[in-house]
Amino acid sequence: MFKTKKQKGLFTILVGVVLWFLPMVTGLPNGLTMDAWHMFAIFVATIVGYILTPMPIGAIALIAVGLTGFLKVLKPAAALSGFGNGTIWLIVSAFLFAKGFIKTGLGARIAYMIMKAIATNSLKLGYTMAFTDFIISPATPSNTARGGGIVFPILRSLCSAFQSEPEEGTQKKIGSYLIASTFQANCITSSIFITAVAPNLLVVSLASETAGVSIGWGQWALAMIVPGLLALLICPLLVYKIFPPEMKATPDAPKIAAEKLQEMGSMKGNEKVVLFAFILALALWATSSFTGINATMTALVCVGVMLIGGAIEWEDVITEKGAWNTLVWMGGLMSLATGLNKSGFIKWFADGVGSNLDGVSWVTALLVLALVNMYLHYAFASMSAHVGAVYAAFLTVAIAAGAPPLLAALMLGCETGIMGGLTHYATGSAPIFFGANYITQAEWWKVGFIVSISNMICFVGIGMLWWKVIGLW
Amino acid sequence: MFKTKKQKGLFTILVGVVLWFLPMVTGLPNGLTMDAWHMFAIFVATIVGYILTPMPIGAIALIAVGLTGFLKVLKPAAALSGFGNGTIWLIVSAFLFAKGFIKTGLGARIAYMIMKAIATNSLKLGYTMAFTDFIISPATPSNTARGGGIVFPILRSLCSAFQSEPEEGTQKKIGSYLIASTFQANCITSSIFITAVAPNLLVVSLASETAGVSIGWGQWALAMIVPGLLALLICPLLVYKIFPPEMKATPDAPKIAAEKLQEMGSMKGNEKVVLFAFILALALWATSSFTGINATMTALVCVGVMLIGGAIEWEDVITEKGAWNTLVWMGGLMSLATGLNKSGFIKWFADGVGSNLDGVSWVTALLVLALVNMYLHYAFASMSAHVGAVYAAFLTVAIAAGAPPLLAALMLGCETGIMGGLTHYATGSAPIFFGANYITQAEWWKVGFIVSISNMICFVGIGMLWWKVIGLW
Repeated sequence: MFKTKKQKGLFTILVGVVLWFLPMVTGLPNGLTMDAWHMFAIFVATIVGYILTPMPIGAIALIAVGLTGFLKVLKPAAALSGFGNGTIWLIVSAFLFAKGFIKTGLGARIAYMIMKAIATNSLKLGYTMAFTDFIISPATPSNTARGGGIVFPILRSLCSAFQSEPEEGTQKKIGSYLIASTFQANCITSSIFITAVAPNLLVVSLASETAGVSIGWGQWALAMIVPGLLALLICPLLVYKIFPPEMKATPDAPKIAAEKLQEMGSMKGNEKVVLFAFILALALWATSSFTGINATMTALVCVGVMLIGGAIEWEDVITEKGAWNTLVWMGGLMSLATGLNKSGFIKWFADGVGSNLDGVSWVTALLVLALVNMYLHYAFASMSAHVGAVYAAFLTVAIAAGAPPLLAALMLGCETGIMGGLTHYATGSAPIFFGANYITQAEWWKVGFIVSISNMICFVGIGMLWWKVIGLW
Repeated sequence: MFKTKKQKGLFTILVGVVLWFLPMVTGLPNGLTMDAWHMFAIFVATIVGYILTPMPIGAIALIAVGLTGFLKVLKPAAALSGFGNGTIWLIVSAFLFAKGFIKTGLGARIAYMIMKAIATNSLKLGYTMAFTDFIISPATPSNTARGGGIVFPILRSLCSAFQSEPEEGTQKKIGSYLIASTFQANCITSSIFITAVAPNLLVVSLASETAGVSIGWGQWALAMIVPGLLALLICPLLVYKIFPPEMKATPDAPKIAAEKLQEMGSMKGNEKVVLFAFILALALWATSSFTGINATMTALVCVGVMLIGGAIEWEDVITEKGAWNTLVWMGGLMSLATGLNKSGFIKWFADGVGSNLDGVSWVTALLVLALVNMYLHYAFASMSAHVGAVYAAFLTVAIAAGAPPLLAALMLGCETGIMGGLTHYATGSAPIFFGANYITQAEWWKVGFIVSISNMICFVGIGMLWWKVIGLW
């Protein structure tokens, strides 16, 4: 549709300008203030920019925030409020956790320990990778960092050890299977913990902002652990059926792992520091509804433990550009979403939709929304852009149709991670795994679609029942 | 006093713990809540940490913020509020301006243009450097980046061009003079614009937080331009008297500058973008009291102009670690200072001091405080640590003594930049200039002290009169 960044940029600006001035032609919709409309214009242009990316989304966020204040749509303090948001700093902290896992080698050690213990055949190797990802997922809010930074390097060197190389035409020996299975698992774990991927935190914030639904870390984990573990247990086996590896037994894998562990030596002090900080964070996050200690504060203190213990250095913090990038683009989006909500726009929209939904049962409405939300992701190159563009609106519609707010928030929210499995561009870790060239694009989409059905049955179907059992609706 | 970082760290923690539990022994002072006392304990420990630096100050800030929330002294939103503060994002933006000046070469071009026009002798070269620094100072909030990143490289290569090299014993030829004069000028320009050095913004925020005094960008500039330009005009001449360069005439300087400009060619598109963004920012900052456009929003929009124009890239933004470092350490300190103020501690302290100051005239009190504030900086290695530790308390005392709040805020605030000239460790740019080895430590302190007297006469003495003339008190 657009060939150059310039065209994309001009279109983005055009959307904003046209929307901004539209009320001069059509008149202002009943029940909205001009400020609310202007906020809407900037918000839509920002989302269009996030989707088309004429510039990196952080740059778009910075400009959008500046403009809301510059054009006096928001007060300066409101325009900047997202940057002091607890969610944002939970993400910044979790990026630093990921740094700790990567830098100290603790992530690799966990993978090799599981591999040494169980991986006597290809299928078990698939499970090894899936559960390595699962174990570290609660504190690595970037599935790209977790999948691409920790799991993928181990996986790739393993494929080489088994002489499965795409350049030599031996990718089907074991590589294709492991790559596909591990990547799909990476997306499933992303759905299980709030802190397993950044857009989950956006989900939580938007749910609170737009529908007043508050979801705690422990509550999310409790809600997702049953459908999530089920999906995670199915995934390696399902992919095994789709891409049966030529090599079934892998008697060498535990030996390779043992050698790597030998090389690494006994656990270093720095690894112990990360492990301690990680367990402390998990314990405090899981018990926060009893202790009342805020999740972000726990994370900051645990990052402090890693800093004091020397596992990461301050230089690591200020050069962790992923954290600062996320701070800006997501903090900016939070400011805009909060501003849009406070302007009354969301309520106006919800009232409008609600009055058009008489006669549709909320179950139907919610399930249709969940299906659309999931497969709409074929059109997105980022979970975050998807959540930013769609989540608040879909949640508003579901609630307007009569769905219990917490149920609707969880159902639309749990899809954020698993939607990443659909395409080779659906999330940041996808191009990394895809780029290893073990799987063609057609194969990738096929696996993605088949696994997505399993995931939908587990999360949306069984999840809905499980949430009823534990009394969430 | 402390030999190792560990000792410093333990002492910092000890200060916090002892203060925290002190009321269990002494009882809580009348009129304070326990939360206010606990906030005070964390604040003092943080400042001790900033001064002793057992870890980088950003790490201390992150831990302190985490602890205030973790120990429930502040609500999570309050603990993180500093990170969404307008001042902080003005600094982040201005770091990006500095990046634009350095990356595009516009800063160097400005220096060579002035040099080509006027620098026919050593003294005029001194003025060239001083005014180069002055011109770019409104948008480079790090005197280290401005002095060290833009001006120093030009200066150092100029010294070489004149064959004035410390290794060859020829430093007195012209280098000693130029280094000393330029560094002192760098500190003076830091006092002239709020955005010329980050701690000025801390001053403005603390003045607003603790005394309800709001100081706009234009107001500060108007207040400081007369004493500041006077000090800046005196400086190169005064240093010329202290360190008379052996080489008086520099007929080659304009030629060297012309050659450099020739090499650079005509102004590139990227430079024009920075220049345009810079002039736009200056115009909007200077007129903000009429337009009502917030200074931070102006800065963000102008950074947006640089991004859209391609003068800086998003990668430059997220790897600008100086900005993120400052965001964390200063944002954290802002949260703590705001928390301490809202807890009622500052008011309690002010009331206590006020009732002990009967009979002391406010003029005496203010001038004594200004003197102490200035020369206390011999004990500090950072303007920011100094401001964080002392400014709110001194301002509170001055106002309790009866000084007009705005006058007191400006007088104590204007010293922030010039105090950097005192020692070779007083501010970030000092070690860079000092490290070039043109000046011994004894000489450095001598120049610093002599110029400080001139600066104090200009800013505190003449400044006070000027502020009366323009009706600020």
